[in-house]
Amino acid sequence: MSARARGRRAGESGTRTAILDAARRQFAERGYDRPSLRSIAQEAGVDPTLVTHFYGSKQQLFVTVAEFPFDPAEVLPRLLAGDPESVGLRLARFLLGVLETEEGRARITGLVRAAASEPEAARLVREFVTRDVISPLVESLGAKDAPLRASLVGAQVVGLVMARYVVGVEPLASCDADTVAAAIAPNLQRLLTQPLE
Amino acid sequence: MSARARGRRAGESGTRTAILDAARRQFAERGYDRPSLRSIAQEAGVDPTLVTHFYGSKQQLFVTVAEFPFDPAEVLPRLLAGDPESVGLRLARFLLGVLETEEGRARITGLVRAAASEPEAARLVREFVTRDVISPLVESLGAKDAPLRASLVGAQVVGLVMARYVVGVEPLASCDADTVAAAIAPNLQRLLTQPLE
Repeated sequence: MSARARGRRAGESGTRTAILDAARRQFAERGYDRPSLRSIAQEAGVDPTLVTHFYGSKQQLFVTVAEFPFDPAEVLPRLLAGDPESVGLRLARFLLGVLETEEGRARITGLVRAAASEPEAARLVREFVTRDVISPLVESLGAKDAPLRASLVGAQVVGLVMARYVVGVEPLASCDADTVAAAIAPNLQRLLTQPLE
Repeated sequence: MSARARGRRAGESGTRTAILDAARRQFAERGYDRPSLRSIAQEAGVDPTLVTHFYGSKQQLFVTVAEFPFDPAEVLPRLLAGDPESVGLRLARFLLGVLETEEGRARITGLVRAAASEPEAARLVREFVTRDVISPLVESLGAKDAPLRASLVGAQVVGLVMARYVVGVEPLASCDADTVAAAIAPNLQRLLTQPLE
């Protein structure tokens, strides 16, 4: 994009593109909290009122540019490969692995935090649980009540994100990732493959 | 409180009391979403800018009047009475029982939603997990690593609240409460009394 297209004089679509590019970069590099509508507008070379006009709130802007920090199509086969009796541990380690990188943590905590008040973010979290990752995993494992299992796994994952990374419940918040993965793996395993009741 | 004390002319402390009374009543009766700073100010007989001046945001006001919808001192002995091998089921049924009442659900989802962005609400949720309810329960059960267990139980509870009541992940969101209690009880039981790894 040319310098001119980033400025105010570009048409609406150029302005939107500049805002989204700036938002994507700032959320990815600085997390959810630090960027402001003002800092994003500044980088995009537009007036902050334009950002509000097009996207409303920071949460809405975040949701518009949100992407999972991994590719489900690449992750699923990796989780399904190997002994079904240890898929809970593989899922736990994969999740902790993503959450322990700065970018992954920023994106996922941003999404979960936004989901608490923004219906569009809630929809993205539901899709993660019910369509993109957990449901295909549960269905491939073949246990009955797959949809309920998938939503219970989702509850466990969202709870871990909230308790360890958002609310900061100790000692869970400062515990090393391997200990956390080992502690939650049997619960995930039960929800994935063992009798529910 | 007299009608006069509710008005603007009362001193700052009378004004604060009127705002808190109105907030407590509206959050209890109408949940977290429906009351606005304006509706609370109207009931308190004060100008909305005064509510903002004293309490900042609706979230901060909510946190100021937040109380658990039960008395931990009454609940704990009830959870601890009986077979330690079924304490997970008793805890699950107790939590679902609270969450299935309109008042209990409004208070707890309000607190969890606020915790996603309000540090003071996050502190209340941590206290629930680490001091008032779950920690005393875990410590009474005598398993080692009690603090980590308590925070993992907290993660499970917060995750259930988010997934079933805030984000609305199906079929968990519309599943009957007994099925949900039975499905999460073994995971709570493991975190409460069984080996962690």
